[in-house]
Amino acid sequence: MKATLIYGAGDIRVEEVPDPRVQHPTDAVVRVLRTCICGSDLWPYASRPATREGDRIGHEFLGVVEETGADVSRVKRGDIVVAPFAYADNTCRFCAEGLHTSCPSGGYWATDGVDGGQGEAVRTPFADGTLAKLPVGEDSELLPSLLTLSDVFCTGHHCAVTAGVGPGTSVTVVGDGAVGLCAVLAARRLGARRILLMGRHRSRTDLGRDFGATDVVPERGEEGIARVRESTDGDGTRAVLECVGTLPALETAFGVVRDGGVVSRVGVPQYEDGPVGPSMFQRNLTLTGGVAPARAYIEELLPDVLDGTVDPGRVFDRTAGLDEVPDGYRAMADREALKVLVRP
Amino acid sequence: MKATLIYGAGDIRVEEVPDPRVQHPTDAVVRVLRTCICGSDLWPYASRPATREGDRIGHEFLGVVEETGADVSRVKRGDIVVAPFAYADNTCRFCAEGLHTSCPSGGYWATDGVDGGQGEAVRTPFADGTLAKLPVGEDSELLPSLLTLSDVFCTGHHCAVTAGVGPGTSVTVVGDGAVGLCAVLAARRLGARRILLMGRHRSRTDLGRDFGATDVVPERGEEGIARVRESTDGDGTRAVLECVGTLPALETAFGVVRDGGVVSRVGVPQYEDGPVGPSMFQRNLTLTGGVAPARAYIEELLPDVLDGTVDPGRVFDRTAGLDEVPDGYRAMADREALKVLVRP
Repeated sequence: MKATLIYGAGDIRVEEVPDPRVQHPTDAVVRVLRTCICGSDLWPYASRPATREGDRIGHEFLGVVEETGADVSRVKRGDIVVAPFAYADNTCRFCAEGLHTSCPSGGYWATDGVDGGQGEAVRTPFADGTLAKLPVGEDSELLPSLLTLSDVFCTGHHCAVTAGVGPGTSVTVVGDGAVGLCAVLAARRLGARRILLMGRHRSRTDLGRDFGATDVVPERGEEGIARVRESTDGDGTRAVLECVGTLPALETAFGVVRDGGVVSRVGVPQYEDGPVGPSMFQRNLTLTGGVAPARAYIEELLPDVLDGTVDPGRVFDRTAGLDEVPDGYRAMADREALKVLVRP
Repeated sequence: MKATLIYGAGDIRVEEVPDPRVQHPTDAVVRVLRTCICGSDLWPYASRPATREGDRIGHEFLGVVEETGADVSRVKRGDIVVAPFAYADNTCRFCAEGLHTSCPSGGYWATDGVDGGQGEAVRTPFADGTLAKLPVGEDSELLPSLLTLSDVFCTGHHCAVTAGVGPGTSVTVVGDGAVGLCAVLAARRLGARRILLMGRHRSRTDLGRDFGATDVVPERGEEGIARVRESTDGDGTRAVLECVGTLPALETAFGVVRDGGVVSRVGVPQYEDGPVGPSMFQRNLTLTGGVAPARAYIEELLPDVLDGTVDPGRVFDRTAGLDEVPDGYRAMADREALKVLVRP
């Protein structure tokens, strides 16, 4: 079959790889109907050292179960399923409390010999725990929105939930990428009153308005902080959803949060140390969030996707075949595309 | 009157200063019955640059209202009152939600022309908002415990509350100073199941056991982290109360917290940047806490102090007169004394 590999910064190739097969009794093989490129894939695309052997890449997919191991009972051949961006057994003490990303048996796609999502098929560890069944057909028009349950919509939701967003909360979202826009959607879904979206890409912030942003702040840094504060009686918002992952984004988040408020982040930190000294302490700020346990949220969010209450699939503004994946990376890196949907 | 001044590291003097008087209609003058030396006073005592003019110091006191401004109506001459370590108007939007330390009219004792607590009397700004009345007499045996409502017991409570401690929570307390011990007491009061106290001073950790610690971990650093993890099935505890303020203490806190758990800190950070990068993110850890809005908690904690349910005054292991305050600093810095109560 074909799959996507990364050989280093800017070097994405689609190549023949061995067909995936059940290796453990808890495995399933899923034929991929839809996958996509993630903003977080752009980090290695920007900076990964070159290697002679490529590594698989991609962590978002939905598809059809083709083969199951002997111990798999919850999903069966022919089921349409979506995979969260981390696999997990869904039975351990961490999974039981919704923290699937800390599952001792779990892990990430495209690491440690596990397939990446950007390919024609994927061997799925702990299939019973990992995969969520979708009550749709292979030709459903909802596939793009359902695919966002793999990562970006669940991640935006995790950001809003851990920030404590509820009815009436004032929220700033830092970043107008797919996760930021999904965070807007999730915050509105949870009842946020005022949602200020910090972003400067008009086509993205327009979608952000459709998703529920009440204000768009295109300025960055100190200027952006001043704009948010002016718009909120000088105080900032109670919740800030940091959906970028850079240190300046975190600094902006601390700048726009109200004293006593919460900064939640779901962009993978591109820093080791952050500004958590006396100022944060004096203001009683909370820093929370983290890698989203997407699996924990799929069943909760699924009904709203199925009935069209939310349409997170609108973050996809380009569709590509598998052979076009390298150009999809380029287009996202060049900001030509917000998020590229892939039909293998 | 006499009051305590700091002239630099190691240089504490008790000197004659002008008697405090009502300067604003919202002021009151409080004659101090009890004050004390705080662990946080030891930071300037250790490192403050020498100055020709001394600065007032001290931020914990209870006493008798002696004089009130024209606009003061809630407290009156003769009332026994305790002051939180930050004054505040108790009417603004931040005070209304219990974040008195962010009151725009508020501030700290011994700064900006406001008296310090370690003296014979204190001019108290926003007396109606700042002072909490105590239903006891000048000779009450409860004065030491009531004085801890000024800071250390409320601070320990704030740490436990912001860490989400409730019935059944597993807790690690980092630090066996007065605040750490009060955090143990607060955590037990809130229903914590297991309380591991990290501290190496036997007399202090013995008091910690009396206050509710179920385990004492004398080891530090990696060794201490390993001990806590061994004692908690390898996972660490859901809540960690960091009551020191140094970077190693914060690192220990992150080391002993369970994935998905909360580190709350109430020791003033002696660092600007902290380790909040990919590891914290991957583990979905929360960092919270901050300077305690003690005023918000006094009425809630007062009944348990009055009826003896808690006895946080046991953190005082030495009593001094005002002239002995310099030696009290020395004794605390040398770890001869845990916390020094002062009777001016």
